[in-house]
Formats: sequence, C-alpha cells, structure tokens
Amino acid sequence: MSTDSPPGITRALARYVAASDFRQLAPEVVREGVRAITHIVGCAIGGCRHETIDRAWQALAPFAGAPQATLVGRLERTDILHAALLNGIASHVLDFDDTHSTSLVHPSGPVAPAVLALAEWRPVSGAELVNAFLVGVDVECRVSDVVSPSHYDLGWHATGTAGIFGAAAASARLLGLTEQQTVWALGIAATQSAGLREMFGSMSKSLHPGRAAQNGLAAALMAAQGYTSAEQGIEGKRGFAHVLSSKPNLEAATRGLGETRAILDNTYKPFACGLVIHPVIDGCLQLRRKLAPQAEIRRIDLRVNPLVLELTGKPTPTTGLEGKFSVFHSAAVALIDGMAGEKQYADARVRSADVVALRSLVKATADPKLRKESAEVAIECADGSRHVVFVEDCVGSLARPMTDAEMDAKFLALCDGVLPADKAAQALTLLRRLPDLQDAAEAACACSA
Amino acid sequence: MSTDSPPGITRALARYVAASDFRQLAPEVVREGVRAITHIVGCAIGGCRHETIDRAWQALAPFAGAPQATLVGRLERTDILHAALLNGIASHVLDFDDTHSTSLVHPSGPVAPAVLALAEWRPVSGAELVNAFLVGVDVECRVSDVVSPSHYDLGWHATGTAGIFGAAAASARLLGLTEQQTVWALGIAATQSAGLREMFGSMSKSLHPGRAAQNGLAAALMAAQGYTSAEQGIEGKRGFAHVLSSKPNLEAATRGLGETRAILDNTYKPFACGLVIHPVIDGCLQLRRKLAPQAEIRRIDLRVNPLVLELTGKPTPTTGLEGKFSVFHSAAVALIDGMAGEKQYADARVRSADVVALRSLVKATADPKLRKESAEVAIECADGSRHVVFVEDCVGSLARPMTDAEMDAKFLALCDGVLPADKAAQALTLLRRLPDLQDAAEAACACSA
Repeated sequence: MSTDSPPGITRALARYVAASDFRQLAPEVVREGVRAITHIVGCAIGGCRHETIDRAWQALAPFAGAPQATLVGRLERTDILHAALLNGIASHVLDFDDTHSTSLVHPSGPVAPAVLALAEWRPVSGAELVNAFLVGVDVECRVSDVVSPSHYDLGWHATGTAGIFGAAAASARLLGLTEQQTVWALGIAATQSAGLREMFGSMSKSLHPGRAAQNGLAAALMAAQGYTSAEQGIEGKRGFAHVLSSKPNLEAATRGLGETRAILDNTYKPFACGLVIHPVIDGCLQLRRKLAPQAEIRRIDLRVNPLVLELTGKPTPTTGLEGKFSVFHSAAVALIDGMAGEKQYADARVRSADVVALRSLVKATADPKLRKESAEVAIECADGSRHVVFVEDCVGSLARPMTDAEMDAKFLALCDGVLPADKAAQALTLLRRLPDLQDAAEAACACSA
Repeated sequence: MSTDSPPGITRALARYVAASDFRQLAPEVVREGVRAITHIVGCAIGGCRHETIDRAWQALAPFAGAPQATLVGRLERTDILHAALLNGIASHVLDFDDTHSTSLVHPSGPVAPAVLALAEWRPVSGAELVNAFLVGVDVECRVSDVVSPSHYDLGWHATGTAGIFGAAAASARLLGLTEQQTVWALGIAATQSAGLREMFGSMSKSLHPGRAAQNGLAAALMAAQGYTSAEQGIEGKRGFAHVLSSKPNLEAATRGLGETRAILDNTYKPFACGLVIHPVIDGCLQLRRKLAPQAEIRRIDLRVNPLVLELTGKPTPTTGLEGKFSVFHSAAVALIDGMAGEKQYADARVRSADVVALRSLVKATADPKLRKESAEVAIECADGSRHVVFVEDCVGSLARPMTDAEMDAKFLALCDGVLPADKAAQALTLLRRLPDLQDAAEAACACSA
C-alpha cells in the first residue's frame, strides 16, 4: 500500500489508537473515563459471587495459568486471559452495567477487564490505562455504529461483537503496538467477533463481554508477536461490517474521530433493572417522598414509552431476573422500599406478599409520544387524593447523569456483602485516583477479596 | 417443554450426540474415522513448526496452564485448551487438511484437536474418542448444511463457524454430558461461532479451526458445570441459523440423522495445494509416466472447470503460498518433480528457473461442461508428438479416494523433518490402532517431538 493512499477504516482506527496520548485528553474525558472504570469494577464486584461466575470458574480453573491477575471480589488469582474473561462475565451478570446512549453498547465490560488484567502483568501507569480504556471505548462504539441498526435487528449482541474491538484496541494501546500491529489486532478481533441475542435470559449472555475482553486482549497479544490478519478486517468485502450488517455505514467509523469522545455519551443505571423502567422508578420515588407514610394506595397508573411494555411488560414475575424486566414489580417495590437496588430484585423480594399485592394495582399505558427517558406516574389513594408526577429525563439519563456521590454510593452498595467495608472504600479511592497512580495494578489488586 | 413436543434442532442433535455409542458404529465408519483422525494429526505435525504457530505460542505461552496435553510435533506441553487451539491452527496452516465433499467444511481440524487434548486430561478409550470424533463431524457438517450456501456467500468461513459445533459436540460426548448439558454446549458454541473469509491469505485463517477447537471444548466443559445457554441456540429466532444465513435450511440438521454418516463423504488431498488443481496434477503425473525422460515439452494445454481459473488462475506466483493457488505452477512442478507435496510449494521451488520456464508454456481453458473432479491435460513435445489424458475423477476425490497406503505415505512425508522416522512410524501405528487402545492418550502423546 502506498503511504499516500487514503487509509481504510481499520487502518484509520489503528492509527488513532496508536497515536493516542493521555496528555492530550480533556479533563472531562479523563473524569468520565475514571467514572466508567470505577463503575464497571463495582458492577463486577457485585456480580462476582453469582453462580454464573462460579460455574465458569469451576469449568475453566483446571486449565488456567499462573496467578497473574485479580478476580475482582474473590480470593483467587488467575492468568490475565482468564481474569479478563471472568471479570467481563461478572461485569454484566447483574444487568447493572453502563450503557452508551447512542450505540446502546455496554461499553466498559469488554474493555476495562482486559486493560486491568494486562496492567497486572505488564507495569503501566494509571494514566496509560485510562487512555487505553478511552480509545477502546471509542473504537467499540464506532464499530457498533458502523453495523447499526441492522446488526441488532439481525440478532447480534453488540456488547460481544463490537466489544471485542474495544478490548483489542485498548490492549493494543497499552502494549504499545505499532499502527500495523494494531491493524492486525483489530483484524484478529474481527474474525472472532461473536454473540447472539438468542442467549438473552441465559448465562451465555454474560459470556459476551467476557469473551470479548479475553479474545480482544489475546488479539493484541498475538498481533504484538506478528500474528497477521487481513488488512481490512472491518471494511473488507468479507470483513466484519459487510458480513455482520445488512446495511453498513462505514463513514460512522471515522466521522469526527479524535474530536468526539464516546465516553461523554455514556450513562449509568441508578436502578438494578432494565434501563427503560428507570423513568417509572424515578417517578415512583418522587411520589413516595410526597405521600404520607401511612397512605393507602388504591391504584397506580403509568404512562410510558411503548418500548417499556414491549421489553418489560411482564405483570407477574416470579424470579429476580424476571423482576428486573417487569415494570409492574419495579414500580411496586420502589414505592414500598424507596429504592431499586439488587435487594429489590432478589427472588424472595419479587415473591413477597406486600410487593405482589401492590403490583396488582399497577396499570400501564403505552404512549408513543413519550420519549424513552420520560414517564408519568399517577397514584390514587384510599382517601381520594391523587398525586401525579411527570419525569422528563429520568435520573441516570445523559441529561440527568448520576453524580459522583451517587456513583460512589452505588459502588459501595455493590461491594456490600462481598468486600469488607474498609477494603471497598480503599478500592474505590484507588480507582478514583487512577490517573495519578504510578502503577495501575495497585487499583486492580485492591479489588480482590 | 413437554416431552411429547417435537424436539428442536439443537435438542435433536444433542440427543443424537448423547446417545451415540461406538458399539453401534459400522466398520466402514470406524475405519474412515480413524483415517480422518490420523490424517489430520499428520497435517498438524507437518504444520507445527510454521511461523504461524510459533507466533501464536510466543504470544500465549505466558498465560497457559499446566502441561496437560501435547503440542503435536513439538517438545512443549500445555493446558488442554491451548493445545486444542494450537493443534487446530497447525492442522490448517498448510492447506493440506481434509474436505467434506458436500459441505466443503474442513471437518477434522476443529474436532480432533479438541478430543485428543481432552483424552490427555480425562482418561478415555480409543473407541470412545473415535465415536466422539465421529458425532462431532456429523454435527459440524449438518450445522454447515443448515446455513449453506448463503453462509459462505455472506463471507463466513464454515471451518470456524460450524467447526465450533463439531468440537463442542465431540467434547460433550467424550465428557459424558447429558442431553440437556449438550444442548447448552451447542448453545455456548453457537454464541461464539465466528470466522470471516476476509482473513484468507493471512495467519488468521488458520485461527478459525484453532479457536473452534478451543472454544468448542470450553463450551462442553462449561456446560458440564451447568453453565446455561438458550435452549434453541441453532434454530431460535436470534440463533445461529437465522443470524448467520440469509436462507437457513433447518431440515438439513436432522434429515437422515443416525442413518448417514458425514465421515463417509470426507476426502483427503494427495497434493499440497488447492483442491480444484488436483485433476490437473493427476493428469500431469499420468502423462509424466508416459513421456520419455528426455522429452522436450513445447506446450501444455489444460482444459478445466471454470472454478480452477477463478480460484487458482495466478500465472506468475512468487511465494509458496501463491504457488498453492496457481494451477500453472502446479502443472509445471508436477511434470518436473513427479510429485506435488510440501517441497513443491516451498518459496524457492516456486521461483526456481526450471519451474518458471515450464510454467510459461502452460495454457489453460475454462470449460463449464467439466466437473470439478475432471480435467484434460495435453502435452506437445519438440518431436511433434502429442499426448493427452482425460481425468474423470481425480485421485483424492470421493470416487477415487486415497488408499490407506497413500494416506500412510502422506502422514510420514508430513512428519519428515519434524519427528524422527521411528517416532513418526510409532505415532502412525498408534493412531491407526486407536479403536483398540485402552487409553487414547497413548496416541496423542506419541505425536510429541
């Protein structure tokens, strides 16, 4: 290839990754990167004792390598590839991870576990790690935009399929790969890109960010040794974009590259359930503060975006997981408990009599005029009073992001019952200080049990 | 699901796998299974010193686990997942592996490395291993048929995408998984199915059977621990078939299941080059035996199926790899050397003056009336004599399969320069005796350097 010819997408992204530098990052980009890393580690700690992780670890531990890296929230250490896999699975298992507001990828789960594991094997500064994470998220969201929306409609889960590019790009940067090696890393990632929506509702859904983290990291490690791939893994005729999308939008890969940063469109869930339920919960919590503690509720009316009923319209959930996808349970439990964390989605809580009783009073109406971030909640009490709240932009949306204090509280709540309080606080402090750490591994190690 | 409802494809295949039994195999099926396993191990030994394997191993060795399994042809041992990966890569790197004549999958590369590695970790008999291998090949070829031909046209490489199902099914059988666990193993395989044709010509092509072997084996190991997947990983609305094919043929999965055996449609290459070139080489070798040793060739005319020029029409190759996809080089070198093995496709041989000179005398004409197994070769000598041969079914085709003696000779030729002659002979003997071995690991271990 002549050096004058216009670079293809894969090469343009590789060039961007290889040239990226922490010192050129805007403060708000660094800030959001640190929030995202801290948050996803919290999610992984919260999920690390789930049976999904236990079963995967039982299956694979006999074949794992040296204890190089931390399994967050656990006592075991393992090789960096298995650490990336298991921490990636843990990041997603509670469905509590971050969401990129335009691509709808869960961006941090495939990327952060890869770079954190790598940092425990090859010393890097916290600043280098944050920079690598940020370019990984950029690449992942851009690759997802290239194949969207037909990609999702076909049945692909972009957190797996695009996630592997993010993990490969971030790992490539952290390993100091050249532009050419990064092209190969992205190509090796492309040819391992996988993850089917059919798996939703099973343990294999969480495998997607896990394998993306592991295989993306491996792609960069292989490229570093000169393992080659096609030069146009993304845009080639038989490459990722054309094969995994019926209508690829190749320009999306590079439009505004280096100017816009994907992390600035990232969102975090205050509540441990489907994102589309958040406006309703927000409204319920607002009304709860207005109602008298003894108020007897007679009827609850929800007005919601149609997607809410489509995705979370289950009126009588029987398990915690079903509860996470039931707007009826979510409204009821939020009104009773005044919160919607993991405990509100425990199996027992979903089946408890008070919640089941209140849930039966909830009626929901789809209103196509409402945005996904909006909802109306109306409560009628036994004394005849009626209370209404309209949520324009729910908490956790890009317009009303979680504050640092709320994020810290979420982190500590996720650590509750997994790490001792002092360890959790220390992990949080170190993650928050990542850009200042000489050795990023300090933060990763602090997350072990 | 009621036990009366008709099983879906995934469950039907799982049931078939779980119920399979060596004692019910027809002798010719066992025979062909042993031939296929022996042959693919030979291919992997021949490929094991290729820089593709060296680079992958250099990249991944620091993260590998205990020395549980053999890297064929090498001194190192590694954990069974990495052994499956590296032996799978090695099986394909020379483009000398087997081809299923209807699905065109290279069936053994993803399956045999998985079960051979597993056999070194968990003692099984040779008979159990052969049976597991055979059901793996069945599942893999059937899954490929489900998504063909649009799958290939879209850009997928079935040796990767379908191969992982074969590895998962074979590993599931060898681990003694239940029907339900096998459903999960196939589902976990489905959601990791990957491999793009864009990678052809790069090292990442060989990654496809390698990752298929590794991830299929891991899928079975995870399912054994109760790691769940969707129930309809293959046929579900967002499952493998509908997502990776524009026109899936679901019936192909189970039509004649248990009656026809895929292995009986398997073919092996006598020559170390593209399959479509085989009829021409066959014809050249036949003519060479008729010509006087001093005959001066003036012109060589080939009449071939159009695919030959489409896939291997390169008139002036400059590397060994290009030579493997040049019908012109292949005809010339076969006429001079009287063979078409790895040495005839070394970089130096492709560039040597005698071959280049003869190659320039080769003319090829596409004839749509010719089948892929047929070709005509006509040679005109300086003395005016003209010699013509028509090959109806080339050696190595299903109609003219390689004999056991030819397969043995190919195995030993592939071992030449990698294993000492006595070790190669011993490995061959043990592989040939697989169905009689109490411990299949004996055969796997015999393939180390």
